[in-house]
Amino acid sequence: MIQRLRLKPNADRRLKAGHLWLYSNEIDVQATPLKSIKPGARAVVEAANGKPMGIAYVNPNSLICARVVTRNPDLRLDRSLLVHRFNQALGLRKRLFDKPYYRMINSEGDLLPGLIIDRFDDVLVVRLNTLGMELAGQDVIEALDQVLSPRVIVFKNDSTGRRREQLESKVEVVKGELTEPVIVEENGVRFSVPVLDGKRTGWFFDHRSNRAWLNAFVKDKRVLDVYSYTGSWGVQAATHGASQVLCIDNDAQALNGARENAALNDVEDRVSVLEEDAFEALAALKTEGERFDVVILDPPPFIRRRKDVTRGERAYGQLNREAIRLLSNDSLLLSASSSLHLSMDRLTECVRGALRHQDRNGQIIFQGHQGPDHPIHPAIPETAYLKALGVRVFRD
Amino acid sequence: MIQRLRLKPNADRRLKAGHLWLYSNEIDVQATPLKSIKPGARAVVEAANGKPMGIAYVNPNSLICARVVTRNPDLRLDRSLLVHRFNQALGLRKRLFDKPYYRMINSEGDLLPGLIIDRFDDVLVVRLNTLGMELAGQDVIEALDQVLSPRVIVFKNDSTGRRREQLESKVEVVKGELTEPVIVEENGVRFSVPVLDGKRTGWFFDHRSNRAWLNAFVKDKRVLDVYSYTGSWGVQAATHGASQVLCIDNDAQALNGARENAALNDVEDRVSVLEEDAFEALAALKTEGERFDVVILDPPPFIRRRKDVTRGERAYGQLNREAIRLLSNDSLLLSASSSLHLSMDRLTECVRGALRHQDRNGQIIFQGHQGPDHPIHPAIPETAYLKALGVRVFRD
Repeated sequence: MIQRLRLKPNADRRLKAGHLWLYSNEIDVQATPLKSIKPGARAVVEAANGKPMGIAYVNPNSLICARVVTRNPDLRLDRSLLVHRFNQALGLRKRLFDKPYYRMINSEGDLLPGLIIDRFDDVLVVRLNTLGMELAGQDVIEALDQVLSPRVIVFKNDSTGRRREQLESKVEVVKGELTEPVIVEENGVRFSVPVLDGKRTGWFFDHRSNRAWLNAFVKDKRVLDVYSYTGSWGVQAATHGASQVLCIDNDAQALNGARENAALNDVEDRVSVLEEDAFEALAALKTEGERFDVVILDPPPFIRRRKDVTRGERAYGQLNREAIRLLSNDSLLLSASSSLHLSMDRLTECVRGALRHQDRNGQIIFQGHQGPDHPIHPAIPETAYLKALGVRVFRD
Repeated sequence: MIQRLRLKPNADRRLKAGHLWLYSNEIDVQATPLKSIKPGARAVVEAANGKPMGIAYVNPNSLICARVVTRNPDLRLDRSLLVHRFNQALGLRKRLFDKPYYRMINSEGDLLPGLIIDRFDDVLVVRLNTLGMELAGQDVIEALDQVLSPRVIVFKNDSTGRRREQLESKVEVVKGELTEPVIVEENGVRFSVPVLDGKRTGWFFDHRSNRAWLNAFVKDKRVLDVYSYTGSWGVQAATHGASQVLCIDNDAQALNGARENAALNDVEDRVSVLEEDAFEALAALKTEGERFDVVILDPPPFIRRRKDVTRGERAYGQLNREAIRLLSNDSLLLSASSSLHLSMDRLTECVRGALRHQDRNGQIIFQGHQGPDHPIHPAIPETAYLKALGVRVFRD
């Protein structure tokens, strides 16, 4: 017998609007005591009048105490629903991409809260970010087997979100063996993906279309890739004809990856790396009188919580200022942010301030977002986090 | 001797931030009586302490009483400055496009407030939208001759903005002769452009990259193009493999153009037209049980002034609802807005409401903006007006 989760009067508005989250203060705990529900259990969500509204999984210990997995109260979060959602998601990806490299499941954006799956051909990297999804782990494996028969499935369960759900951090190969390097192909360029010990799933598919846009601008240019990680921007730029690329990161292992990826694409003679803090490196390059035609800023999120907004915006502003100082006349700045709490308007404001500070003109010629394999849920603004500005920078 | 325009204390903040507009209440009229300046005259803009900040042209009869054309107080709005700006602008376009079809000058976005120039190969269509720019008309012609030697220059001076500047509406060929149809090529498709009697310059370059995005989705699909004008979306869809396209517009002349453009690309057998009000046509198609795989909504701006926001959002919501009703399962909605006062977030909200109203799921897989030949000025939010959402629509 499935549990019930009764909403307080008028607490069903967000759900009716299409959102998938319930907060603990919205539950009628008289009717359905939240604390009596076993963490991770599934429940029928009911409106205040008892009408069933859908199926959710519950975590009484989390601020978001339940996440809806279907609006059909007759369904369950089981292998069958997962197979259905996987097929829905693959239907979209197969229309979008002619090669099997993409984010296959984007959590709420694909109506599967707490589940991330990145596909690298026959290797699937899965992140179970909530307790409710963790408990569906075996069903996820079986559903993936049914839909795609992958050679390898990795559970890369080391997200910070798991800590909030009181889940341990654990990375394991749950199907097959990782005997050879995992390769991703993006915009015609090949990269080795550190799925076991890299960041997130080892690759950031979300900037794919922004990198594709930039690739058209780099021929014969001197390019600076700040926060390069394993060279996703920089090595693509070199492969698309940049005359020289400098990748800056403070992570030696990531820079080894960048070098390896440059070699993989026969551009190692045009890619060099610098292991240093970004701000320090930019200041040093300025002192040395270096100039670049294209600067890419793809920093980690400077704003992780709403209370960090002021300090974070100052950091974005300073980073963009330091970058613009290094730009030659009539050049290009690619300025990105993955901070949910920094809107496109505020990023524009950071760039505007930086341009004025350096007395340069700017023309915004590109506003980029997360790629189409990271669908945004129209009712969940939290699913839209990535932004990139392409700015032509010149003197009057 | 050039006039002076003195700002009140602290009224220079917007200008220092990079903006190009001055409002009449910001002028120190004791020091520099605004009403004594001849409408259209050029002036040195001075900070309250007398420091020159740039050169503007003045219209005391307009709410925006002056627009800055350069921050260098030693320059003037003359042929030489125009040649400089045209070359700056062409430098960007030539990097962006391999064919000579684009918006060449985008007003404030190219640091030339009040001036729009669209290029159709050797035919240039110019709009002088302010008195200050109107008075520079002869310099514009000469500067264009010097930079591009066009065969034809058309002054398409019929914008509503001109009325606010108390300028007459007038369309004239000021250089050469329009002896044959003007052709534009966009995303590999050719169109005839009604430069003399069409809307604006006869063509809307701003959606170019959004149409390019959509073109990848239409193969073998049944497509509905609402507010089709001369078929920019619909005929491109047919040329990119759509099995059937229906163009709806209430303008018979525009639909004649759509038919002509279909023939020009040998897809007239797959493009049909319907002359009717959009809302009425959508309702009738629903009654007839019609279904489409792709619906394009590119309406005229429903919100022209801030006070129209509530009514306008309702209209966008209703339009999207009517469109979603016609969509087959697992289909695509392209929902655009050119209303400055409707943000991307608010358009998303209109689409979200429409999806819920029709009990459909949606995934936003594309957020599009005006193309790169419509540069946005980072300090002037008014220069960013266009948005388009690509939404996959499906049932649970």
